[in-house]
Amino acid sequence: MLRLSRFLPSASRRGLDLKDALWSGSLTFQQAVSTSAANLDENSSGKKFASYTVFKGKAALSVHPILPSFSKVESGGSRVNRNGSVMLTFFPAVGQRKYDYTKKQLFALSPTEVGSLISLGPAESCEFFHDPSMKSSHEGQVKKSLSITPLGSDSGYFVNITVLNNVEKTTDRLSVPITKGEFAVMRTALSFALPHIMGWDQVLTNHHTTAPPVSKPRVERPHPDSEWEK
Amino acid sequence: MLRLSRFLPSASRRGLDLKDALWSGSLTFQQAVSTSAANLDENSSGKKFASYTVFKGKAALSVHPILPSFSKVESGGSRVNRNGSVMLTFFPAVGQRKYDYTKKQLFALSPTEVGSLISLGPAESCEFFHDPSMKSSHEGQVKKSLSITPLGSDSGYFVNITVLNNVEKTTDRLSVPITKGEFAVMRTALSFALPHIMGWDQVLTNHHTTAPPVSKPRVERPHPDSEWEK
Amino acid sequence: MLRLSRFLPSASRRGLDLKDALWSGSLTFQQAVSTSAANLDENSSGKKFASYTVFKGKAALSVHPILPSFSKVESGGSRVNRNGSVMLTFFPAVGQRKYDYTKKQLFALSPTEVGSLISLGPAESCEFFHDPSMKSSHEGQVKKSLSITPLGSDSGYFVNITVLNNVEKTTDRLSVPITKGEFAVMRTALSFALPHIMGWDQVLTNHHTTAPPVSKPRVERPHPDSEWEK
Amino acid sequence: MLRLSRFLPSASRRGLDLKDALWSGSLTFQQAVSTSAANLDENSSGKKFASYTVFKGKAALSVHPILPSFSKVESGGSRVNRNGSVMLTFFPAVGQRKYDYTKKQLFALSPTEVGSLISLGPAESCEFFHDPSMKSSHEGQVKKSLSITPLGSDSGYFVNITVLNNVEKTTDRLSVPITKGEFAVMRTALSFALPHIMGWDQVLTNHHTTAPPVSKPRVERPHPDSEWEK
Repeated sequence: MLRLSRFLPSASRRGLDLKDALWSGSLTFQQAVSTSAANLDENSSGKKFASYTVFKGKAALSVHPILPSFSKVESGGSRVNRNGSVMLTFFPAVGQRKYDYTKKQLFALSPTEVGSLISLGPAESCEFFHDPSMKSSHEGQVKKSLSITPLGSDSGYFVNITVLNNVEKTTDRLSVPITKGEFAVMRTALSFALPHIMGWDQVLTNHHTTAPPVSKPRVERPHPDSEWEK
Repeated sequence: MLRLSRFLPSASRRGLDLKDALWSGSLTFQQAVSTSAANLDENSSGKKFASYTVFKGKAALSVHPILPSFSKVESGGSRVNRNGSVMLTFFPAVGQRKYDYTKKQLFALSPTEVGSLISLGPAESCEFFHDPSMKSSHEGQVKKSLSITPLGSDSGYFVNITVLNNVEKTTDRLSVPITKGEFAVMRTALSFALPHIMGWDQVLTNHHTTAPPVSKPRVERPHPDSEWEK
Repeated sequence: MLRLSRFLPSASRRGLDLKDALWSGSLTFQQAVSTSAANLDENSSGKKFASYTVFKGKAALSVHPILPSFSKVESGGSRVNRNGSVMLTFFPAVGQRKYDYTKKQLFALSPTEVGSLISLGPAESCEFFHDPSMKSSHEGQVKKSLSITPLGSDSGYFVNITVLNNVEKTTDRLSVPITKGEFAVMRTALSFALPHIMGWDQVLTNHHTTAPPVSKPRVERPHPDSEWEK
Repeated sequence: MLRLSRFLPSASRRGLDLKDALWSGSLTFQQAVSTSAANLDENSSGKKFASYTVFKGKAALSVHPILPSFSKVESGGSRVNRNGSVMLTFFPAVGQRKYDYTKKQLFALSPTEVGSLISLGPAESCEFFHDPSMKSSHEGQVKKSLSITPLGSDSGYFVNITVLNNVEKTTDRLSVPITKGEFAVMRTALSFALPHIMGWDQVLTNHHTTAPPVSKPRVERPHPDSEWEK
């Protein structure tokens, strides 16, 4: 039987309290996120933030979705010109319930990496590798890897990040154990987020253009499936 | 073969009738919910209520979602400052098809607890512990636990709440058996609710700010993934 | 290997053609649906209809969702006063690709019955019983049952309806075999529909009331979880 | 352990770069899509495009959803008159990271075919057959088949298209291996898309007509389930 706590403040409750404290006490982090958001969108006045954060003994892991961006095409519509992602942010613990946000490490999951994560079986692992300077002259200077490995007995996963800096000759490693329930939250939230970070929700709910109220019914029209218009 | 009823008023139908009767007859309950809602939102004129309720011999269990709240941040956007939850409400039966709403017991599931519930295997159990006065001087006076245990043979679960009041020296226990079909409704509704009580739907559908129609296309812009902006 | 067709018009394509023909040729059916809709909503000018229909040798089965209705409560908000449902409509075949809509049989699945259907294992069955005149003087005159039984080898299900009319001394039976792929469409569409027919989507996306843009941030406010306000 | 890449530009990253290049360099493709869209909707100014594309050694596969269209019915509402679909587009490779869009092959999945794909077990296969000229005098001239077969060891699938042209006496075959993570993206995106291409989302979120704010509450009204109105 899984017991999340025993008449103690539960893990998630502690997390909430911590988060409240952190948000009010740590303007740095809040600003960092806002700055990062400002890069993606000049007009952030209506922008909303939400994350899922688990606080553990040696580190915390926060997960939040990032929207795709669309750009106009010649025909007058718009298309995804950059996919969204799911950002993982790791913070090392520097004391009981204290985390150092200046030492955070980021890892942005692409849609396919999100697909790998949400389809992970109870005993399976996956690992992703990123080079943040991939197409620049700094390529190869910093290498990041993220691995997700089972805790065993279908009880959850370890989420590990390793950041190797060849210039500063440093290697940072952070590891956060995730319970089965916490992973279920991530799997559900990431499955929900996936069509949105790919922009499919905007294509599929853009009803006003596909069924304009002023248009006449086209009942008898043959179905010219675009498949056949080669 | 699962038979929900045999040419009798079905369980769900009976539930509906009961609910109609209860809603019209029991202003107390309706008011209680409204009061509770008023705490969360001064302007409840447009607020909507929906729940899923199962009525059983010894008690009834009602499940309804509660939205998160957002607060503004300095950058002009807003972020979740309190997660939503999924509220479980138990009512003891005091006769055939009669339930005493004045003796109701509440248990609010956090996102992680919702994750535990929706990932529960057919033979698995889970248990959660809450202290409603956790951070006050009354801490430890009232202890609540919720357990979900299998009925056996993949036929559903028992949902049990125990409320121990150390001041009044009372222990209240209520238990509601849930069929496999009823649990499927809860699992599906809670999986749907989870991204919403975390505020992710508001982040992911907030399209007007991320792709303003007046903005110019940014086709050739390199992708400055926020991952790399350490 | 599953083969839907072999260089022939595929089943789904045939279905489409049939449907086109039927919709244009059978005003009766279209009217029937409109009439039924008019009972639920006087103002049906903006109402939309969509169904999923499978056409088989002896009968056709059409599935469509019905929205819940809300009514105002004293506090100024509104709550579900009648759950939505998923309507199954059976039509007997009266010739090749011809179906008699005047002999249709209806069965409205409640949320719990939808839960039973979507959680059905590959070798499991379920059966539901309805009495359309349950609370009237005609109770027991007509008895309906719906059963879903596996085709075997994880290849799909039989969906059977039996309507026993004790007054007219008639028994109508219609049976439609559903492939695994068709059942996956129903399972996915019904899982999507379930939170909507329960009204949960309206509760969870009713953002403007929970986070009014004119309200002040409530950053430091303690979290008075309604759980504790007993 | 699944390794998506080893300190190399990852597959998905390469895909993004390629896509950027292709979109800017290959006006042909962009125009083709726009043209195809224009057939479905004269007013495409607000139309949005999003796809999921995997680039492999011998070919690329792009997946995007197509909305259903509604037409008005006599009662004043509207109903689906043509289901949406999920379009698969295959491009042959003509060099390293180069694909020839003029040789693309299209295959539009119906809702039932989408259902077959998303319910595919790890060791299962499925195959669909289309004739683009089915109801015309050219019936049988071009035959298309799509098959999805397991790669083995639960590691993904091969997606194969064969187009047999009896007039030009040509047979085109394209095959794209899909990893388990990529298939999870498709399964999740297609499960999300399915209710939308069937029009169910528009029926289920069309709230303003089913619960008009000006209508009076109907609390005590008996529930005249349309099921019983035979």
